[in-house]
Parts: sequence; C-alpha cells; structure tokens
Amino acid sequence: MKHARFMVDGRTLAGVLDSDGSLRAADGSRHDPAKVGWLLPVQPGKVIGLALNYKAHAGELGLQTPEAPTLFWKPNSSLIAHGEDVVYPTGAEYMHYEAELAVVMGRRCRKVAPAEAMACVKGYTVANDVTVRDFVTNMFRPPIKAKGFDTFGPLGPYLVDAADVDPRDLTVTTQVNGQVRQSGQTSQFVHDIPSIIAFITTFMTLEPDDIILTGTPEGLSHVYPGDVMRCEVEGVGVLENRIVAETA
Amino acid sequence: MKHARFMVDGRTLAGVLDSDGSLRAADGSRHDPAKVGWLLPVQPGKVIGLALNYKAHAGELGLQTPEAPTLFWKPNSSLIAHGEDVVYPTGAEYMHYEAELAVVMGRRCRKVAPAEAMACVKGYTVANDVTVRDFVTNMFRPPIKAKGFDTFGPLGPYLVDAADVDPRDLTVTTQVNGQVRQSGQTSQFVHDIPSIIAFITTFMTLEPDDIILTGTPEGLSHVYPGDVMRCEVEGVGVLENRIVAETA
Repeated sequence: MKHARFMVDGRTLAGVLDSDGSLRAADGSRHDPAKVGWLLPVQPGKVIGLALNYKAHAGELGLQTPEAPTLFWKPNSSLIAHGEDVVYPTGAEYMHYEAELAVVMGRRCRKVAPAEAMACVKGYTVANDVTVRDFVTNMFRPPIKAKGFDTFGPLGPYLVDAADVDPRDLTVTTQVNGQVRQSGQTSQFVHDIPSIIAFITTFMTLEPDDIILTGTPEGLSHVYPGDVMRCEVEGVGVLENRIVAETA
Repeated sequence: MKHARFMVDGRTLAGVLDSDGSLRAADGSRHDPAKVGWLLPVQPGKVIGLALNYKAHAGELGLQTPEAPTLFWKPNSSLIAHGEDVVYPTGAEYMHYEAELAVVMGRRCRKVAPAEAMACVKGYTVANDVTVRDFVTNMFRPPIKAKGFDTFGPLGPYLVDAADVDPRDLTVTTQVNGQVRQSGQTSQFVHDIPSIIAFITTFMTLEPDDIILTGTPEGLSHVYPGDVMRCEVEGVGVLENRIVAETA
C-alpha cells in the first residue's frame, strides 16, 4: 500500500493510492494525484544520511568506500514535499540532486542485530538529498550547511509499506528536465539496510518515523534555477521538484 | 524566572524555582528540587552545536579558530535530564565532558540580522556535550557517533528566561567529583550569540525550542564510569550527571 498526506481545498487528508490511480482519503473521497497539494508522507523526528554508499559513486568522487557507514544529518527544517520548490541559494556555484531510497523506521530500537533490523522498518519513500558542494571539503563529513538549507530535503510522495518492497535491487534514477542524469541499483550498496540499522543503533536509538537516507548512485551533475529534478526509486515512487532562484 | 519540568509520584509537573528554593508547580504545590525526578526543561526540535568557539579551547587542541562557525548535530535521542546517568560505551577510551551555555530559541526565524537575533531567544539552559574522542579525526566536523550516543546530551535543569541573563560574560565550569577541571568565560567566544544565530539562519530556519550549544571552554580531560560531572553556567544552573558503565 502507498500512503500519502495531502491538501485539498485547505483540508489536510490522509489516504492511499488506489488501483484506479486516484488518491482515496480516509473519508472515502477520491482525488487526482496531479491536483492535490502534497505533504510529507511522514514527519520524522530525525533524518540521518549515509555518504558514499554506492560503490560506483564513491569511485566517481575518487574516494575509497568507507569501512564503517559515514553518517550525516539532514535537518527537519530542510524537508519539503513532492511538488514543492527547492530554493537555489544566491551565490551558490554547485548544486547537486541526489536520488535516494529512504527507509522509514517503524519501531523504537537500539542495538538491533542485522537479522532483526528489517522488522524495525515501516516502509520506504523517495528522497532527494539536495547538496551545495561549495562548502564540502570533506566528502566523508559534509558540513551541515552543505545539506541543511531549507528546501534541500524533498521527500515523498508516498510511504510504501515495507511488505510491498524488496529493497535489495531497485533502480534509483534522477532525470533533470526529462534527461536521465543519474542511475544505479541498490544492489550496489556498500552497506545494506540491515547493516546500516545495526550500525546506527549500536549507539543511537531510532524512533518510529525516523528516516535513513541510504546514499546516492553515480551520476552527479550541476543543476540550476528552472531545472526540474525527478527522482525515482523503482516501485517506491517518483519525487519531482523544481529549482527556483532565491528571492530577497 | 527559572522554569522546570519534573516528575513527582509519577506525575509530570511544570513549575518555577521559587525564592524560598522550592519548586512551585503550576497547581501551587511545592517540591524539594533534591527530591524530584528531573525532566528536560524544553523538548527541542533540533540541537545544533558549535565546535571550537572559545579561543583558549581551540588553542588547547592546537587548532586555529574557524572563520565561520563550524556546526555539528546533537541528536534528540541523546538528550537526558539533570540527574540522569550518562552511559560510558564499552570499549571507549576517551570520554570528555563539555560544559556549555545552551541557547533556547523562542521564535521561528530565518535570515535574522545580528541586531535582531537576541529578540528570537527565549532563554538559556546548561548543556554537557559529552563526547567520545575515539572517533574524532577532524575537530571541525566530529562524526555523528562521537557526540550522538544515547545519554550524551545532558541538558537542564532550568530554562531561564532571556530577560534574566546577560550571556556576554558568564563563567562556565565543570567539576568532576568535586574538582574543577574546566573553566572559562563566555566573553572568550569566537562567535557571539547574535553572530551564531545570524549565521545559522542564513540557510536554516530555527524553530521555537530549537537549541544552540555555544561551545565549550578549555580544560578537557578524560572521565570514566563512576565519575560525577557537574557543569555550571553562572546564573543559569548546575547540571549534574553521573557516568555509569554500559551493561549488556
């Protein structure tokens, strides 16, 4: 099941994507996905990203893949929904999209063994880990500013139930203005999802709706105001956001 | 006014420190601060720390003070209240206390000029930014694990109204088992509070109850299970937490 939260005529609705392609709200009403205002499918307490988790992407940056998962923080204040605008900061030189499979946690957990980790997952969504590379001097530990601008965290459109997704070999792509720029398979993960959850929970409690971004495949390129980024994870969703210039 | 949240006989109460030294709850009941179970004085949406913000502390680490504020993330899952135990991770070698003046935001704000920044502050509390240095290879950008363990974020005991504190020259100290180990003045800040808020809000929205940790003065040393850390910020409060060994 694909779950969504959206606005219609000023009302906030929760619903699911029906087999006829409409959004069916909890009150039984049906809505055209192209006409609703999308909201975040979940409201995470924290969002943790992984750097360099695809073998080919690390190679593209000329870096060895890290032995332990290397984590960074994506602030909640950066999150926006499907269809909302990403703001290009005035003066930035290198903005990149990063399409990612996002894991949504379903249970409070700490010190989870890899074999138990998937039972703690509620579902999946799509993330675009927008990054301004201007400030990145260390790929293993990007500064908060590089990934933390307001609007740099598009997420959605759906929360897809874990039971409906086998995350082990999904195609992850980004199209910019209709052209494929980035593509990879989650089978190229350096650290798979059970290993990531096990690593994080060696020291940190994960809570329901916390999100883990599983890294981005090769194929980064610069994007600019006016560009439309379309991030897709096979079977999970298509997340589309336009870039606009910052206004004073 | 010093505001607190605490538990008495299983009930959660909010109150203030009265002139007679008792905690006066909203229902009028009075309680001995030494006998209540302390809770976090605020529940922040995000906690952002500053590395190397005291001139002498940067010198102690052999580092130049950074031109721009260097930020790190303290996960909410790491936060504990006054009197709760900090867990020493099995196998860790270098655990440090870091006493800090914590700024509690009072308004949603973005792109705040330094001259307007203090109007966005609700108040202050004391933080102990507990860190395991084992994982720190870059002082400007500590990995999430170094500062992100559950219990590594003691905070409290009071939220002190901004009107009652001039944060510009406060003494910040840590005693370990009754001995002063760390001491400094907030007048040694590399970046003062208005500058920090202005910098963060160039790119990120701060929300009410978000917290900024303003850095720690010189005087780091190792601490171990059994040690009691007592972090004090003049006029703001005394935050005491014992270190216990991790259990299986």
